[in-house]
Amino acid sequence: MLTSPTKEQVREQFISLQTKICEELERADGQGTFISDEWQRPGGGGGVSRVLTQGNIIEKGGVNFSAVWGRTPDSTLKMLGLPTAQDDPTDFFATGVSIVIHPHSPRVPIIHMNVRYFEISDKNNDVRTWWFGGGIDLTPHYVDEGDARYFHERLKDVCDKHHYSYYPEFKRWADDYFFLKHRNETRGVGGIFFDYLKGEGGFTKESRFTFVLDVGNTFAPLYTHFMKKNHALPYGDREKQWQYLRRGRYVEFNLVWDRGTKFGLETDGRTESILMSLPPQARWEYNHQPAPDSEEAKTLAMLRKGIEWV
Amino acid sequence: MLTSPTKEQVREQFISLQTKICEELERADGQGTFISDEWQRPGGGGGVSRVLTQGNIIEKGGVNFSAVWGRTPDSTLKMLGLPTAQDDPTDFFATGVSIVIHPHSPRVPIIHMNVRYFEISDKNNDVRTWWFGGGIDLTPHYVDEGDARYFHERLKDVCDKHHYSYYPEFKRWADDYFFLKHRNETRGVGGIFFDYLKGEGGFTKESRFTFVLDVGNTFAPLYTHFMKKNHALPYGDREKQWQYLRRGRYVEFNLVWDRGTKFGLETDGRTESILMSLPPQARWEYNHQPAPDSEEAKTLAMLRKGIEWV
Repeated sequence: MLTSPTKEQVREQFISLQTKICEELERADGQGTFISDEWQRPGGGGGVSRVLTQGNIIEKGGVNFSAVWGRTPDSTLKMLGLPTAQDDPTDFFATGVSIVIHPHSPRVPIIHMNVRYFEISDKNNDVRTWWFGGGIDLTPHYVDEGDARYFHERLKDVCDKHHYSYYPEFKRWADDYFFLKHRNETRGVGGIFFDYLKGEGGFTKESRFTFVLDVGNTFAPLYTHFMKKNHALPYGDREKQWQYLRRGRYVEFNLVWDRGTKFGLETDGRTESILMSLPPQARWEYNHQPAPDSEEAKTLAMLRKGIEWV
Repeated sequence: MLTSPTKEQVREQFISLQTKICEELERADGQGTFISDEWQRPGGGGGVSRVLTQGNIIEKGGVNFSAVWGRTPDSTLKMLGLPTAQDDPTDFFATGVSIVIHPHSPRVPIIHMNVRYFEISDKNNDVRTWWFGGGIDLTPHYVDEGDARYFHERLKDVCDKHHYSYYPEFKRWADDYFFLKHRNETRGVGGIFFDYLKGEGGFTKESRFTFVLDVGNTFAPLYTHFMKKNHALPYGDREKQWQYLRRGRYVEFNLVWDRGTKFGLETDGRTESILMSLPPQARWEYNHQPAPDSEEAKTLAMLRKGIEWV
């Protein structure tokens, strides 16, 4: 238990989290190893991108850490509803871990996790505002209801340890966020999504941070469970083709709707780290409609908001 | 030569253009045929999407026609800098033909063409403002300098028939528009792009329309030239893999930067017609760098603004 974590402490915990998750994913994969790419941000800070390709179970997986800082852009201040006075400059600091895993098998789901911390400080280095954000969500190529239930139960467990309001609120937030409006489809079976978790409503910085670290530590056991359970299930060309189409939807969500991706690409973020989330391959077919009552049609029918899995 | 074309006349000419282009593409392909999908827009109008897949030369090609109308949304009026008075309602009418062709062979370029007409009329049905837009641009998987030069020469020919300022202006516009800022790459070797061609500066509605139709009629002979010339050139797995990576870039441009795609997806356009431009498959590889002096590296070096091909 940490008392009032500083940005350095948050950063160090996130670095440890990245290392630990990569180790656990490598162990579960049994073959692939993460390469490591360090990069600097011209305006301040940088990151370490870790990528595993052509593993035994993982086809392409990225585990990104970054910590970036600098003078807060006016556009960010405006977005946050904060004053943009030029005679009162502020600095920002942002750190996080982001993960997307694309498995070989269409029977193993795609997963995404993110934990992040953001703060703005004034010229005396006093923190003016801070918050945590993050979440975990699951995108099965084929929805297995038992798996979806198990996934949501584990997320509810970690949420309930911290506050009874967390799971229902953050589950709904994920349904709303991971939504392809132009397809009227959710990206997958959702999960939890949260942002702007501040020291208010009885929550302290320590309690928010402990929750966020708990979410981070939930990722590896949860995903390696699906890796072990599902990777040997049989599939053929039909399932691979469907997987490529679903990966196409993943591309559509990330490039059209994901705020983080859009913001990163429009503000000169490190492109290769941002687009690490894209699948190794994807496919598009004009007006593809799965056969009625097929396994694919059943999956589509479950890609909607508001399903209570727990 | 038409005198002061009405929106009905523009629409009819665009329908004829779609038909003619589909016929010429089928003839050049020698195997594939276009299927035809008619759709209605709930707010008014609709379109016909024509798609050819698994031809002899064309892997996936879409030739869209649409003509849509209705009450002008305030957001559109604002974008155009027009008043949004509720007591003075206006109607819009928009019609166009849009084409994207993805060939099987990485030696045949991807091509895109668009011609469009937009008008806003008041409650007395008087046209308050109108303009034409459009263009043709080429995205080779491997840049062949002779092909790029030929392409730009043909575009300059059709532009020069109408006004000496057209080619240099619209060529630069294409360089600026078909640009992936997050990659610092142009989408391909450019071409021409134009918008807001109104009846001003000595140009009449007839002269603008004649130019736009000329651009439309240039498409089929130009692209079938490349189909015939390049489809039998040899290639192997290396060139296919590079083609998939370049198609990935095509997806990135269309979903992240293309105004028409973004506008369509955000305003409940017909998704399948909008995303017909996406390739049959695409690939992403973390931090892919072609070998120095390879054919792939030479192509990358030519994907930049400001190359004068003519």
